[in-house]
Amino acid sequence: MTLVRSELRWNGWGFLGRSAAFTRTQEQGILRELERRLGCALEPLPAPVPIEAVKLPDSRIDERTHAALRSACGDSGVRSGRFERVSHAAGKSLPDLLRLRRGEIAHAPDLVVYPPDEGAVAAVLRIAADASLAVVPFGGGTSVVGGIEPRPAPQHTGVVSLDTTRLDATIRIDARSGLATFGAGIDGPALEAALREQGLTLGHFPQSFEHSTLGGWIATRSAGQQSDGYGAIDRLLVAVRVVTPEGVLRTLDVPRSAAGPDLNQLILGSEGTLGTIVEATLRVAPAPTVQDDRALFFHSFSDGVAAVREAVRGGLRVGMLRLSDGAETELGEVLRRDPARRFDPTRLGRRALTRLGYGPESAALLYGAEGIDPAAVRAALRRLRAIGRSHGGFPLGRSPGRRWRRDRFHTPYLRDWFLDRGVAVDTLETAVCWGRVETAREAVVGALRRALDSHAGGGLVMAHLSHSYLDGACLYFTVIYALDPANDVAQWSAIKREGTDAIVAAGGTLSHHHGVGSDHAPWLAAEKGSLGLRSLRAVKSAVDPAGVMNPGVLL
Amino acid sequence: MTLVRSELRWNGWGFLGRSAAFTRTQEQGILRELERRLGCALEPLPAPVPIEAVKLPDSRIDERTHAALRSACGDSGVRSGRFERVSHAAGKSLPDLLRLRRGEIAHAPDLVVYPPDEGAVAAVLRIAADASLAVVPFGGGTSVVGGIEPRPAPQHTGVVSLDTTRLDATIRIDARSGLATFGAGIDGPALEAALREQGLTLGHFPQSFEHSTLGGWIATRSAGQQSDGYGAIDRLLVAVRVVTPEGVLRTLDVPRSAAGPDLNQLILGSEGTLGTIVEATLRVAPAPTVQDDRALFFHSFSDGVAAVREAVRGGLRVGMLRLSDGAETELGEVLRRDPARRFDPTRLGRRALTRLGYGPESAALLYGAEGIDPAAVRAALRRLRAIGRSHGGFPLGRSPGRRWRRDRFHTPYLRDWFLDRGVAVDTLETAVCWGRVETAREAVVGALRRALDSHAGGGLVMAHLSHSYLDGACLYFTVIYALDPANDVAQWSAIKREGTDAIVAAGGTLSHHHGVGSDHAPWLAAEKGSLGLRSLRAVKSAVDPAGVMNPGVLL
Repeated sequence: MTLVRSELRWNGWGFLGRSAAFTRTQEQGILRELERRLGCALEPLPAPVPIEAVKLPDSRIDERTHAALRSACGDSGVRSGRFERVSHAAGKSLPDLLRLRRGEIAHAPDLVVYPPDEGAVAAVLRIAADASLAVVPFGGGTSVVGGIEPRPAPQHTGVVSLDTTRLDATIRIDARSGLATFGAGIDGPALEAALREQGLTLGHFPQSFEHSTLGGWIATRSAGQQSDGYGAIDRLLVAVRVVTPEGVLRTLDVPRSAAGPDLNQLILGSEGTLGTIVEATLRVAPAPTVQDDRALFFHSFSDGVAAVREAVRGGLRVGMLRLSDGAETELGEVLRRDPARRFDPTRLGRRALTRLGYGPESAALLYGAEGIDPAAVRAALRRLRAIGRSHGGFPLGRSPGRRWRRDRFHTPYLRDWFLDRGVAVDTLETAVCWGRVETAREAVVGALRRALDSHAGGGLVMAHLSHSYLDGACLYFTVIYALDPANDVAQWSAIKREGTDAIVAAGGTLSHHHGVGSDHAPWLAAEKGSLGLRSLRAVKSAVDPAGVMNPGVLL
Repeated sequence: MTLVRSELRWNGWGFLGRSAAFTRTQEQGILRELERRLGCALEPLPAPVPIEAVKLPDSRIDERTHAALRSACGDSGVRSGRFERVSHAAGKSLPDLLRLRRGEIAHAPDLVVYPPDEGAVAAVLRIAADASLAVVPFGGGTSVVGGIEPRPAPQHTGVVSLDTTRLDATIRIDARSGLATFGAGIDGPALEAALREQGLTLGHFPQSFEHSTLGGWIATRSAGQQSDGYGAIDRLLVAVRVVTPEGVLRTLDVPRSAAGPDLNQLILGSEGTLGTIVEATLRVAPAPTVQDDRALFFHSFSDGVAAVREAVRGGLRVGMLRLSDGAETELGEVLRRDPARRFDPTRLGRRALTRLGYGPESAALLYGAEGIDPAAVRAALRRLRAIGRSHGGFPLGRSPGRRWRRDRFHTPYLRDWFLDRGVAVDTLETAVCWGRVETAREAVVGALRRALDSHAGGGLVMAHLSHSYLDGACLYFTVIYALDPANDVAQWSAIKREGTDAIVAAGGTLSHHHGVGSDHAPWLAAEKGSLGLRSLRAVKSAVDPAGVMNPGVLL
């Protein structure tokens, strides 16, 4: 069940067979709406270049090193073909895709290795250190922050991309303890399938779930769509094995410890800079037998926030709480509308809600609960609904939840569809305490609007609250704007910089779940403080004194 | 509301005014039972020596350093009197008390400073580094693992104990976000009182609650009696400020972050070796308006474990689950019995249970739930009771819970009462995954029994399960044995060593909530691995290159 790289797009999101699909009339409707809102005629981008047209420098690995890597990983585990090198050259951020469509890559790995086991990973790191090569661990390749680009440091003569997807074994499932141990290169569907066979689930569903790996989730401190209920990856990780240039760092499979600082939490978020995660033991829960997703419509985002906050602070445990602001709610409707249908349920629903007094600022809350106790699930949903109604919420029933579940891993495919049509979509995210949720949303939305005005002649900004905690929530922002084809990466960079500055100024973290990579690295000192950064660099020096691992990322 | 050191025992547990109190007939009954069970006549220990008799070396601080410290902390903030030095010389472990009763101290601080603010803490560290003094942060002084002893490293000319209890301000309570910021020297009752005024609670109640400090909880990764519900301190900490010799390390008050490794988790469990924690922001919950504690009686510890495991893995959230094995359950009854009373409810209750088929191996489960939603509390208790009954549990009603709540901070006073009578009480604890709970309990109880047989001519070993997680639980062991007065510390040390070896061999962590200190330090490499230990030492070197902070502890 290994992730097969050749089934994935090298220059876009996800699987080759899948994409956003609209009927011709829908498509025309959407484009018309977009042109109206962006205030300009859209100009389609040139078609992406074929992979043969990508400008690829020669591989710089000498034959001795090549032979040593082959003896560690086997002949089939060392690859230098065009497809391998190009598909390991970048992640899936907006600027990554803009460049790849044009056949530009900033850095290509000189070689891609697929080590079959921990020993081979250790051998690769040794060989790389000896040959002054950098090593970039690569799982699903879905980084949206520049976390996996093969960027050599000055001392390096080349870069090896270490693809972890052969480390995909289901090593041990202990149903009694609720612990499962996997190779770190296993992908989401394979991991869940192995667990479901035993009536278990990890409950970790990032949007990249279908083609991202366990090791990547850990390295980036990933959160999933149902992490409100199951906890994000930092709550799910029990023990880990990391091959560093200085040897194996490993933690114990105990449920909690007061034996000094928690080393798991040093590995979580280390983004491949300390070593390659090869194995992890996770806390798994009984697979849910009941699952129910509902929705509520609020007069305003503030009303929705008040309801969510009250529920969470009151100890209510639901699996998902996702509150979209007016702009996001309305754009969702636009994307669902079909002008060819005489009775469009989306339009009819909006009209009915308008008659009930819900205006364009109205916000939709999707909420869901699941578990093995139907009474507990019912009680949670009932209580949430009651809290929601006390804040002016109008129940929308189950269909928005059904739609969400159907499309949950599908939305990112839309970005490529938009790109083809000359429209950029990018996202920024943060987490702030409850006291700052509304001011932060306003400040960041305001900054992004100003950025779009200056750099794209306008655009759309939307926000949703995606994860909730006792003390605050994650805010997720989406921007949509017309690309400036002559200047697209600089245009993105300016918008990103102004949005990120606003996030930091609003008291938010640099990232709730996307990670740091190279894109956020300039702001990391503000997040960690200089002494914090020095501490992390000290750990890096202890386990990777020669600086082999993932240069230019994080630290 | 500062903790007043002079109201606390310098050579025993807790407040001067409080102690275990039994009637004369109760006392005789208990001693008779103990002698029968330990198989020997008990010989009372000599009375503890008065503080004047403690052998105290001269203070080695030169006048220039003394003056500099006075200018940082004020005249009243620098103390070198006998009481101050002796009461900062040791924690509250069994060997600490054995030595203190005899007037022996391994190391005394040359001086005790009470810095009034963060600036003064920084000044103390600077002055200490200049004068080659070690600094030992000291909060409540309740360490039971040798974590606060002023033990100089070879390069040190003396040791300063840095008492944090003047850093006790309530800095900020943000009820909207559910965040509260305190000086790290605030004690449990003061912290809870400040929160209760705003309808909030931290929900952190370690047994030392009444005279331990927030900074100590963080430094030792403390867990409390209701951490099953509220989460232990590692879940409650949001942001922290630590004054290190290289400057201030601080984290942000955000609910979650994927911006690199979590620095909070490096501070949690750092045990004063990185710096002095001066301020912390905590996640606080609404103060409960409903609170209900119940009990169930099981035929065996295994049945109880099965019920607890089923409840926790099924997603049931209760505030406390504490399962005592047969030996602990029965000793509790002995301690409550009063031979003077004709109708002893404890005896009557046991007789009734025996008639119902519950034998000496029967185990008692105390469970409680609390919150602001009466229906949710009721539902949780009802479900737990149903699960318990399906495992043969017999409901004991509310009185065991009432007793537990009344005595929750009182039990440690018993240790001094036992010591006066020549009986040692010590505790060891660990956490293991569910699959190992029963084998670990048997292995550790067996090893402790053998250790008591070899080193104390026998003794009692009891266990309880104190905290539960999705993937495992904390096991807490108590040993009771007749002291060998000529050899008491070596006797303790042998028993401790054999018990700890058994814990590590059984796949348990070195400590679930007591910490490492100096007592557990020899086993830390087994827990963290050599590379893990090297990583932690690298952080230490980055923030404390001269090794000023708490030498001999943890690393």
